[in-house]
Amino acid sequence: MTSIPKTINKDLQRERDNCTFNVQELICLLDGGAEKTEERKKREETALREGIHLDDVPNIYLSHKEKYEQAVKKACKLFKMIRKLQEEENAGMENYRAVLGGSLGSAILSDGSPLTLHYVMFIPTLMGQATVEQQAYWIGRAFNLNIIGTYAQTELGHGTFIRGLETTATYDASTKEFVLHSPTLTSYKWWPGGLAHTANYSIVMAQLYTKGKCHGIHPFIVQLRDEETHMPLPGIKIGEIGVKLGMNGTNNGFLGFDKVRIPREHLLMKNSKVLEDGTYVNAPSTKLTYGTMMFVRVMIVHDMCSYMAKAVTIATRYSAIRRQSQPKPDEPEPQILDYVTQQHKLFIGIATVHAYKTSAEWIWQMYNNVTAELESGDMERLPELHALSCCLKSVCTSDAAACVERCRLACGGHGYMLSSNLPLTYGHVTAACTYEGENTVMLLQTARYLVKAWQQARGGRQLPPTTAYLTVAADSRRHPPFDSTVEGIVHALQMVAAGKIALCVAQIEKRQESGMCYEDAWNMTSVQLASASEAHCRAFVMSTFYKETSEKLLEVSAPLKLVLMQLVEIYALYWALETVGDLLRFTSISEREIMKMQSAYEDLLSKIRPNAVGLVDSFDIRDEILNSALGAYDGNAYERLMAEAMKSPLNQEPVNQTFHTHLKPLMQGKL
Amino acid sequence: MTSIPKTINKDLQRERDNCTFNVQELICLLDGGAEKTEERKKREETALREGIHLDDVPNIYLSHKEKYEQAVKKACKLFKMIRKLQEEENAGMENYRAVLGGSLGSAILSDGSPLTLHYVMFIPTLMGQATVEQQAYWIGRAFNLNIIGTYAQTELGHGTFIRGLETTATYDASTKEFVLHSPTLTSYKWWPGGLAHTANYSIVMAQLYTKGKCHGIHPFIVQLRDEETHMPLPGIKIGEIGVKLGMNGTNNGFLGFDKVRIPREHLLMKNSKVLEDGTYVNAPSTKLTYGTMMFVRVMIVHDMCSYMAKAVTIATRYSAIRRQSQPKPDEPEPQILDYVTQQHKLFIGIATVHAYKTSAEWIWQMYNNVTAELESGDMERLPELHALSCCLKSVCTSDAAACVERCRLACGGHGYMLSSNLPLTYGHVTAACTYEGENTVMLLQTARYLVKAWQQARGGRQLPPTTAYLTVAADSRRHPPFDSTVEGIVHALQMVAAGKIALCVAQIEKRQESGMCYEDAWNMTSVQLASASEAHCRAFVMSTFYKETSEKLLEVSAPLKLVLMQLVEIYALYWALETVGDLLRFTSISEREIMKMQSAYEDLLSKIRPNAVGLVDSFDIRDEILNSALGAYDGNAYERLMAEAMKSPLNQEPVNQTFHTHLKPLMQGKL
Repeated sequence: MTSIPKTINKDLQRERDNCTFNVQELICLLDGGAEKTEERKKREETALREGIHLDDVPNIYLSHKEKYEQAVKKACKLFKMIRKLQEEENAGMENYRAVLGGSLGSAILSDGSPLTLHYVMFIPTLMGQATVEQQAYWIGRAFNLNIIGTYAQTELGHGTFIRGLETTATYDASTKEFVLHSPTLTSYKWWPGGLAHTANYSIVMAQLYTKGKCHGIHPFIVQLRDEETHMPLPGIKIGEIGVKLGMNGTNNGFLGFDKVRIPREHLLMKNSKVLEDGTYVNAPSTKLTYGTMMFVRVMIVHDMCSYMAKAVTIATRYSAIRRQSQPKPDEPEPQILDYVTQQHKLFIGIATVHAYKTSAEWIWQMYNNVTAELESGDMERLPELHALSCCLKSVCTSDAAACVERCRLACGGHGYMLSSNLPLTYGHVTAACTYEGENTVMLLQTARYLVKAWQQARGGRQLPPTTAYLTVAADSRRHPPFDSTVEGIVHALQMVAAGKIALCVAQIEKRQESGMCYEDAWNMTSVQLASASEAHCRAFVMSTFYKETSEKLLEVSAPLKLVLMQLVEIYALYWALETVGDLLRFTSISEREIMKMQSAYEDLLSKIRPNAVGLVDSFDIRDEILNSALGAYDGNAYERLMAEAMKSPLNQEPVNQTFHTHLKPLMQGKL
Repeated sequence: MTSIPKTINKDLQRERDNCTFNVQELICLLDGGAEKTEERKKREETALREGIHLDDVPNIYLSHKEKYEQAVKKACKLFKMIRKLQEEENAGMENYRAVLGGSLGSAILSDGSPLTLHYVMFIPTLMGQATVEQQAYWIGRAFNLNIIGTYAQTELGHGTFIRGLETTATYDASTKEFVLHSPTLTSYKWWPGGLAHTANYSIVMAQLYTKGKCHGIHPFIVQLRDEETHMPLPGIKIGEIGVKLGMNGTNNGFLGFDKVRIPREHLLMKNSKVLEDGTYVNAPSTKLTYGTMMFVRVMIVHDMCSYMAKAVTIATRYSAIRRQSQPKPDEPEPQILDYVTQQHKLFIGIATVHAYKTSAEWIWQMYNNVTAELESGDMERLPELHALSCCLKSVCTSDAAACVERCRLACGGHGYMLSSNLPLTYGHVTAACTYEGENTVMLLQTARYLVKAWQQARGGRQLPPTTAYLTVAADSRRHPPFDSTVEGIVHALQMVAAGKIALCVAQIEKRQESGMCYEDAWNMTSVQLASASEAHCRAFVMSTFYKETSEKLLEVSAPLKLVLMQLVEIYALYWALETVGDLLRFTSISEREIMKMQSAYEDLLSKIRPNAVGLVDSFDIRDEILNSALGAYDGNAYERLMAEAMKSPLNQEPVNQTFHTHLKPLMQGKL
């Protein structure tokens, strides 16, 4: 129908010409240095060179079954390539991380991979929870992909509440075996990626029974399918769970056990053991297993940044080439990026990527420090890290989902096309609101920590860094004058969080005084508790974004310095205005200051406007990874939309067969 | 694997036993009387009796092309049945409306129908814009389905801004023909449902040129495909636009013209004419064509209610059968409906259905009144109706999208399964945020009206009913004491809207004084203008919901009266608390009153809790229409999830072929 021009769209080129800062400088800053940028680019080049990402017919046109088959083929080719690269270059885990994440990985397997859990959960669990002997036996085979594993925890009837899992593993001392069993339909494992038709082994989390007593959830390694024939082993009931909103390449499965026997040695025994006679030997500390969960949550925040960066790149470039309406009679239709409502939708997205990227890096440092402290037996900062990772996972994933949808809607009807890649991106992001801990439950876990912290602050106790502001708030009787600088807004958001936590504690106490038990009082107050937890997270992200960026400013050029500060400012003003009701309740802000902030916000949008395309170019997402007709670097969105449409199998023939079988008979009254 | 029990889930049965009001009474009230309920039930029974809704393999497992082919087959069977019913019963338009809407229609064609636009746009446009002679020629053929039509307006480069459309229709007096042409790629028609491979005729909106002058957009009827062979006619470039986030049964197409000639009589000439010699004769009034647009927007609000009702029904019933966590050590896991955070997510959804249903009925009355006035030449209330329909379309669709997603997320991981029917429902609802006028553009259209209204109110002018509160606000210098009754909240929301509009007007004037032109000042203020427009809409919906329900209370039983008032109250408190920042800025509310409202809200959740299932049962959505494993009337959600999974083609064989072709070679190092 039409070919894609070799030239850059003129509107987009003009945006790039007018950018006030050096895009390459920001790219390197975001990668963590020029060397890292070069490494990343080389990795991308290598991974895409073999063309595994190219399809004859795009995945989105296939049936559910064909999608799975294509995903297996591509995943196998991909990991064969990675295995070869690792042998050649001995590159550590970087290659794995890149192809499993939301950036490079999504270029090749855009709708998820059936082998991801093998690397992300199966191998790490073996490394974290198997004894040295068990590792010697299993890890080599797993790394060489001689076996393919997954991780089966969630059941049809239980997700986030792990204690409620029903699958049992009962020790039979007479044969030195565990008997795995699914006593009910709701005890069937449900959701694990790769479980359905791909993996032949799995870590299975089950309630361990020995000598008639339950010792709670433990990890077992279980063979699911014959290594030669791939047929399910006796007693194994296995299959796939069906089509989902997104991630349809992941082959999520179900799994039921009918009294399946496995050797005693298949309990992963680094922490707890069962001796041959059935004696249970307790773990030295159950808190050690928190590590993986927190690691995964930090990784999720990184992933969310990749997806948000994609979405704002697509929507911003498209807004630079789309022209619409005619506000002034004698002028041409403006780029929609010139509409302030459009800037309002997009620029907060750009700032949000930077804010969460900074927070993720900060918490990653903290995670490493706390893990090192744990090794030496010091667990003091573990609860703080846990509380922070819970609320950050929740607020970041829900902000990311909102950001991606806002970007999609900002592209009008074309954002609804799968060729924009915005719907698939949303599918990935919104899934993260539920997996690895449902978001409301996560907020309430943080709230438990905050309620305790507030009670300690009231008692004059010193608190760890991320809640130190509570002590300040508990001490001060009166609000200081409101200050609308970024520093002032950081302080204001902390006072909001403190105020909300204080109100919750007062509410719970009042309800207890009126005769409610603590649990009921907590439940009645939980809407406010979740809100307090979110406020705490927003204060943390704002404060971290401000402090860490301020430090980075020392090492960048003057033009970039200006732009980075604008991103921090717009993030601060956006959230101050979004939560203005909280500011009115918990700080001394006045109507005059609100109006001042509103004007400052609108002025800031105008200041960022000329650099919007430069800012998204700085995320440096290759076209293969962006995978979007609307967002490609050259801005030839309309030509690409048409080119993508022409790939539809329906467009390969002028008349569909249903005309003859159904439409014509209907029109002729003969149906 | 497991069969579906014939019994009702016990938790769900207990909920029904404990309901305090008569569900049947509310069903009839919602339908508009017992007679209407009976008619609806009979219609549903008849439409589903033939089993057209039943599939061998559920649609969701098919490829894009197969989905289309299945949709054509079902749509043809469906309209054949309807045609037969109409002949037997002469039932007016009700049958058409039901099978085209989001309720009964979605049971049969869950992902949209390629014939919808034939009934919703093609025939209505002929009826509204064709002359009597043209109608005589076309309408019979269209009604009998001898021809299948669609409506092609939107282009690749232009959507909401209709004046910017590029397709041209140039009159050639020498042959008495119009020449239709697509001068650019962006002028290709893009999006019309059924256009791709289904319709053989279309209404085409194009810029009319005659005697060298452009007269703007006019409707033409154009044959696209040969009636015998269905081959595209010469000069017609046509195909489908590809996969979308949802509605993949609608066969959205593109269409380009290469100098296609059509007879002069194919311009629909009820309003404007072109004479044989090329003379253009103007329309008596261009405002008459607003009618259809407003009609469609009102219909959208009705449709949104259907989709929201489905989503809250699914999530509420599932929350009654799902048990999770153990807040009290010695008690069983509670139903998740007992968590106040869950009630917070769901009950506002129930109230929202009632609120928008009431608003839709009110505006439908207004629409009929205004249309009647128009017939007699009175256009006074047209701008008010137009302003109201714009903001209502925008706020209702975005609230509906938020409601459906909130319900989906409230179902945890299982909400992500397509078998829950929540993702498909979201696909329908979020599309409405963009089609028939992009939501932000809609809000700004209302804002134009409100700015003028405020200027009139300031000048002491009397305003029409829906903006009369502006006169009150413009008159009053001081805020009266805040009153947290529903009536007080209605007043407060109106004061918020008035306050926001006043601030916008002041901002625009200030910016003009500083030298900006009006258009730039408007643009700079547009974030606040959109927000003011939303506030106006919320005040309207709240006020209408309150007033109309108060009237209905006179005719219902005491137990139902109590429940209906609770729904109005929770809607009022929810929105008061959501917009508490606005209340603090524009009313005299105090911190004490905020806390009082928060407690009242939490108490109200507890009061509604026992009737939650009864309230969603009152939406009376048949299982075939609900089409959800999680939400079925019997509450056997887990069994149904498993049964749906077992329908997956992947589950029909224990080992997928890719094991032999890819996985095994990879595992053996032979790939």
